[in-house]
Amino acid sequence: MRPYTFINVAATADGKIDTFERKGAAISSRHDKDRVDELRAGADAIIVGGRTLLDESPKLTVKSEALREGRVRRGMPPNPIKVGIVSSADIHPDSDFLNAGPARIVIFTTNRTSKEQVDFLRGRDVEVFIHESERVDLSQALEKLYELGARRVMIEGGGTINFEFLRAGLVDELMIYVAPMIFGGGNAPTLAAGTGLLRNQAITLKLENVETHEDGGILLHYKL
Amino acid sequence: MRPYTFINVAATADGKIDTFERKGAAISSRHDKDRVDELRAGADAIIVGGRTLLDESPKLTVKSEALREGRVRRGMPPNPIKVGIVSSADIHPDSDFLNAGPARIVIFTTNRTSKEQVDFLRGRDVEVFIHESERVDLSQALEKLYELGARRVMIEGGGTINFEFLRAGLVDELMIYVAPMIFGGGNAPTLAAGTGLLRNQAITLKLENVETHEDGGILLHYKL
Repeated sequence: MRPYTFINVAATADGKIDTFERKGAAISSRHDKDRVDELRAGADAIIVGGRTLLDESPKLTVKSEALREGRVRRGMPPNPIKVGIVSSADIHPDSDFLNAGPARIVIFTTNRTSKEQVDFLRGRDVEVFIHESERVDLSQALEKLYELGARRVMIEGGGTINFEFLRAGLVDELMIYVAPMIFGGGNAPTLAAGTGLLRNQAITLKLENVETHEDGGILLHYKL
Repeated sequence: MRPYTFINVAATADGKIDTFERKGAAISSRHDKDRVDELRAGADAIIVGGRTLLDESPKLTVKSEALREGRVRRGMPPNPIKVGIVSSADIHPDSDFLNAGPARIVIFTTNRTSKEQVDFLRGRDVEVFIHESERVDLSQALEKLYELGARRVMIEGGGTINFEFLRAGLVDELMIYVAPMIFGGGNAPTLAAGTGLLRNQAITLKLENVETHEDGGILLHYKL
């Protein structure tokens, strides 16, 4: 058994989720930020991949106090479980990922992560699961999250982890906010990176809904 | 004076205009192909960049006989002017770009193109304009097309030439057909490549219209 999964991502009209600098450029509108906060508030767990975790150290908490209170009233913790999937973890003690909360934190990693890092993380009450493989087994990770009580899981990128989940057939829903702007850049990151697929392997989406915002942003809603 | 310009491009939901193989993967639906043919039939000239020209050798002709006849009735040639913008031209005598027609053919290039190639092209009635610079000056190229009678010019990629036209502020309209599929690939090409822009240099678009097709394709229509 695995939880229901959805990817949410903000991209430019030319498909970029960041500039070539990869410093976490703002793409979402104010309106879209509120939507993302509601998505988080409706999730039991939020997954990010290694590069996002290590480079951007996202908080992954619910910003709105009202939404956090709503969760608590529904018998949920104020914030979703924060999940990092990272082959080789090296998370800074002062990182927002570890410190913003309160939130349960889960790391899936491989034996490429040092024993010191694992001990450090466990000392900080992080639940660490070590997969005996080159990369984290995403299917097993989702099963473990289900065991931990997660029924609805949000995947917040980056492009590599999004692609790996999509390729493995482990995504139920994909929401793309398309901002009315162009970043360009042959090396700027896109929402699904990794090695990529051949044409006859392309993943097919089912368009559910298109929402047009007044500021020119568009929300594309696909099912898989 | 320069002609009115528009970019038309088909991309996947993850922003790719081809797979990582770069062999010209089909992305458009049947319905979208008809739309593109109508766009071509309404253009005086169609521009492609060097990589598209040399790797894919597109025909750039109007497919529909009825549309070609319509052009002729309006006093236009059956096909738009085919325009290649290529720093270093090396076009094969048997290429579809040179042979599909009838169409006037214009090449903008630099002195990195050999004299033999220029002579060969001119011998095939191609109009060759050589810019004395590292790269073709896009603004000058558009002015020349205006002089040659073009008032409405379609830019059909690839990502590098799209980006350079966008960055130079030489694009009036951008149409993106978004196919309901995912290619993935950190190295797969996107609709605007090149070096890319910093966040505070991002090109702003104005959303004009969103059209949703029955097959899950979406047509995004932006002005600049």
